[in-house]
This record gives sequence, C-alpha cells and structure tokens, in this order.
Amino acid sequence: MQFTAPPVILASASVVGKKEGEGPLRDRFDSVSQDTYFGTKSWEQAESAMLRQCFDLVCQKAGLQPEQLDYVLSGDLLNQCVGSAYAMRDIGVPYLGLYGACSTMAESLSLAAMLIDGGYAEHAAALTSSHFCSAERQYRFPLEYGGVRTPTAQWTVTGSGALILGAAGNGPRVTMVTTGKIADAGITDANNMGAAMAPAAYETLKAHFADTGRTPDYYDLIVTGDLGKIGHVVVTRLFQDDGIDLEGLYTDCGLLIYDLEGQDVHAGGSGCGCSASVLAGHLLKLLEGGQIRRLLFAATGALMSPTASMQGESIPGICHAVAIETQVNT
Amino acid sequence: MQFTAPPVILASASVVGKKEGEGPLRDRFDSVSQDTYFGTKSWEQAESAMLRQCFDLVCQKAGLQPEQLDYVLSGDLLNQCVGSAYAMRDIGVPYLGLYGACSTMAESLSLAAMLIDGGYAEHAAALTSSHFCSAERQYRFPLEYGGVRTPTAQWTVTGSGALILGAAGNGPRVTMVTTGKIADAGITDANNMGAAMAPAAYETLKAHFADTGRTPDYYDLIVTGDLGKIGHVVVTRLFQDDGIDLEGLYTDCGLLIYDLEGQDVHAGGSGCGCSASVLAGHLLKLLEGGQIRRLLFAATGALMSPTASMQGESIPGICHAVAIETQVNT
Repeated sequence: MQFTAPPVILASASVVGKKEGEGPLRDRFDSVSQDTYFGTKSWEQAESAMLRQCFDLVCQKAGLQPEQLDYVLSGDLLNQCVGSAYAMRDIGVPYLGLYGACSTMAESLSLAAMLIDGGYAEHAAALTSSHFCSAERQYRFPLEYGGVRTPTAQWTVTGSGALILGAAGNGPRVTMVTTGKIADAGITDANNMGAAMAPAAYETLKAHFADTGRTPDYYDLIVTGDLGKIGHVVVTRLFQDDGIDLEGLYTDCGLLIYDLEGQDVHAGGSGCGCSASVLAGHLLKLLEGGQIRRLLFAATGALMSPTASMQGESIPGICHAVAIETQVNT
Repeated sequence: MQFTAPPVILASASVVGKKEGEGPLRDRFDSVSQDTYFGTKSWEQAESAMLRQCFDLVCQKAGLQPEQLDYVLSGDLLNQCVGSAYAMRDIGVPYLGLYGACSTMAESLSLAAMLIDGGYAEHAAALTSSHFCSAERQYRFPLEYGGVRTPTAQWTVTGSGALILGAAGNGPRVTMVTTGKIADAGITDANNMGAAMAPAAYETLKAHFADTGRTPDYYDLIVTGDLGKIGHVVVTRLFQDDGIDLEGLYTDCGLLIYDLEGQDVHAGGSGCGCSASVLAGHLLKLLEGGQIRRLLFAATGALMSPTASMQGESIPGICHAVAIETQVNT
C-alpha cells in the first residue's frame, strides 16, 4: 500500500522499565521507571499505568488533548488485551482494539496511517505495551517459581511506545505499508519464538520488495520487531539463499534493546513493547536526527496462546512492514 | 463517518451450534452443527473449525477464492485470539487481528468498510466467532464443574458470522460507521455483562444520532449486539430519560437468537458469535428480502479479563455502530 498523502508522525513517546533503562538504549527513552509496579498493586495494572503514562506523554509532545484525537489504536499481549483497555478506558476517544501479538506496533501504525490517508482521521494515536512480569505470569510461570530459561528464550521487554500521526505537519512520514499474511512453519517450541516468527518476517519483507520494486539497499535500515538472535540469523540466511545480502543493513529491535552478553537475556528482547519502545525511543530519533532517512520497520508477532501450545499446536507468525521516510515529495 | 462510496456487502455466511439451531432463528443460519466439537479434539480447535467453515462458505457464496481478498479482519474472545489466528493461518491473505470482545463483528465490519471506501482494498472479509464451551472454560469454570448460573448471566453463543465486502456489486451497503469510546460505569459483576455494556451502547447510539442528525426512527431496526434482557432494558430506559421512545424499533441479538423462556439461557445470548451470526444469518436477510431497508447494527463488547475481574476491576464496555442500508444513492 502506497500512500498518496503520506501521514506524518507528529510525536512519539517511550516509557520503559529498569532493565531496559540499563541497556544500550538507556539514553533514548523518555522515561525509565525504577518501580516495576509503576505505582500500582498488580503487574497487569502496572502495564496499563506504563502505557497510560506513555500516552499522556505523546499527547503532551504533540501539543494535543486526548479528545483532539479521532482514533486510538492499541493492543497488547495480555488476555483480552486488558493492558490497553484499562489504560484507555477514560480518555474519551474512539477506540479500536487490536491483537497482533508483538507485531501490534506495526499493525496499529499501519491502520492509523490508512485511517489518516483515507480521510477518516486528522489525528490518530498508535500504541502498545508489554511487561515482563505480566507476560511471565500469563505465558510461562509465576515469577516466584524461578523457572530456568532455555538458551533460545527471549526476555519480554517492560516497555511501551506511542506515536501520534497527523495528516499534516512536520516529521517522518509513513510512505508505505505491507500487511502480512500468517505464516506457520510448524515450530512448536514456545521457547523459540524467534525461529517461529522468522518465516513471517521473511515473507513480508520479500512481499514488500516485490510489491514496491524497491531493493533492500533502498533503505538505510531494515529493522524487524523482536526476532532476537536466532530469528535474525534465520531471516539473514533466508535472504542469503535468495542471493540477497542484508549485512550491515538489517538489525532487530530485540538485539538493540539489551546487551545480550551482559544482561542475561539469552536470545534477546521480545514483546509488543520491544519494537514499540525501540521505534519510538530510538529509530525515530535516528530519522529525526538525519542519521538515517529511510527506515523499514517490520514488527513480528507470534499468534499462539499457552492453551494452543499445550494442545500441541504449532506457532503461527505474522509480520507487518511499515516504510518511514524523512525526504518525501508530497 | 459517512462513506462517499458506500461499500457493498457481497456475501454473508453463518455457522452455529446445536442449541442455536434449536432457537427461533433456526432456519436462518447456513449451517447448524450437531457436533459441538466440529470434528476436532478440543473446544478451542472446535471454534477455529467453525470459523473456518464459515469463512470457506462466505468465499464460496461471493464466488471468490481466499487469495482474491485484500484483507481479512478477525478476532474472538479466546486468549490471544487463537480462534481466529488458527482458523486463518493458511489462507494466504493479509491478516489484521482485532480485539473488540463481543463488539468484534462491528469493529471488523467498520474497518473493512473504511479500507474499501479508502481505496486500500477491492474485497475484504470481516468475521468473528465464539463458542460456549471454550468461553466457559476460559472465563468461568470448566463445564465439568457444573456451576450454577446467576439470573443476570448470559449464554455464550456457539456461532460464527462472516461477511465479504466489496467496492462494487449488488447488496446492502455500509453507509456510516460510528466508532465507540470505552465507557466504564463501574460495574464489577462479571455475571451481569448486559448492564456493564449498556452505557457504551447508549453513548455510541447517542453519538451516532448527534453526529448524523438522524433520529432513531430513520431506521427500520436498531439492533445492539449482546446486551440481553437486562442491557436492553437499560438502554431503552436511558433513551426514555432523554424523551426518546425506542419501543418497536429496538431489539438485541442476544434476545433474538434464543427462546429465553424455553432454552434456559437466563438473560439471553452473548459472545462475538451472537451478533455475528444474527447479522449474517438473520438481519442481512431482512435487508435483502426488503422487510427492512435501514438497519443500525451496534455490537457491544466487555473489555475485561478474568484476571482483571479477580483484581476487583470494573468492566469497561465498548460499542461500535454500523448503518447498513439497501436504498442508497451512489
């Protein structure tokens, strides 16, 4: 999908947890909380409080009151997406709930851009979050159990990212969107999400290049969502097999957010908040600062549930790609 | 949102379970399964199988192969929306996962209409499902527990509905959409969803009338999603307090699908599949048959989770309204 009037990213905000604030991107986030509970009494409420803080911040940065937004698009990993619903319940803005697992930042951004370019909105917010503690409790074990992680496991990012898009103004622009198809390579190991999501990332990136006629080197940077160390290698190799070298062009939010050696995160970061906080905190600043001009942001998601995994189902993956550029003829 | 080129509902399909096939709408659904497992080995897989059957049917009715669709928009009540993800994992169509709880049919229909009217799609499918047994296990108790239901409780519909929208063709048209805001009236009783969702329905309907300048009697029928007996009374009274009489104009899918006296369903039907199967099976046939010409379809959702309820949180509700009409000047 190519936009005739590419929507502008007017503002972005990122709020993360303590561990993320100790990683390589520590100086890029707007706010780092030392309190894992974010002032609340449960992990689920903490996630909502973090997302709400992030939303308030992005509105403030854009100079908009929430009620000036035409739509809010949000979702998260929690059962029934309560992270988003409770964070947004009193803002008084038309709300579209999404479920794209860890691909949510790209899904919400894609739809927000389409709603604006289509003339349905003047301003729309796209946001998402994840929290290590609420995700562990829900997907794996209560923290108190002290489960040992496998080497392929990733660390769910405690973080949130929010963007406000507008029909006019200054800022990087969303120029193209490639909505992904579900890809299921038959992987059943819920501790190896990178491998499960890599085929979806490969398919969506390949489709993006085929549809647009662009080659990977059109972009200054191609960034997948949260494939981590293993998924990043898989995607690199799949393109290598096609004779395409992504070396130096391609990285992953799950690799950027932590020091993989020093922070004991095994295969890297994951969760909706991983790609959301890295996009809002780091990548958009690279665009705004002129270090890069053309970014292909491809957040990835694993669409299984613990129940499905217990029933022996394999893990369907999805990936949506969004091209964000600073030098656009409009 | 008023569409300049109102998208056409080219085809619809509904697949339901045994109990729904014994209710007042028994002759309206495309398929009634006597097998609650739909040929699978778990309730979750049953829900996916039912939704997939419904999707295959709607493609067949529209005379389209799945790959001719530009987008599929789907979601459900199961954790991580696995009902939809597993049903759609091999169709090879760009997939947008939604979470709107029981409002999903209206959310997917709204977004599909915007994607088409905005020029992003030629054909898009909007679908959703719910299954009594998967919902009971996840939201309340395993069936084997034999829990006694409160009088205000509703019965989750085993059913699915799917629509295919197109930019051109014959059929009822989606003329307007009102995307709802989250409304939380502070109700904490998860066995009284009708009361929890009624304020959202009232707010969205009121906003629709205010935004469009239409009065309720513009419509031949106004139908909320799954408020059941209690929520229907609440909405009727809230409008009465405003001096607006909805008598004879307004009903609810949760009241239409079951015989409330004879089928032991207490306050009526609920679940994503309630409004989806009633819209696809019954309401669109009223439009196509000329019994009604102007329908306002307002599916309602409760955005809580069992975890949030256990933490004492109140239940946020949401409602999206979609105007569907047969006599439209285009």
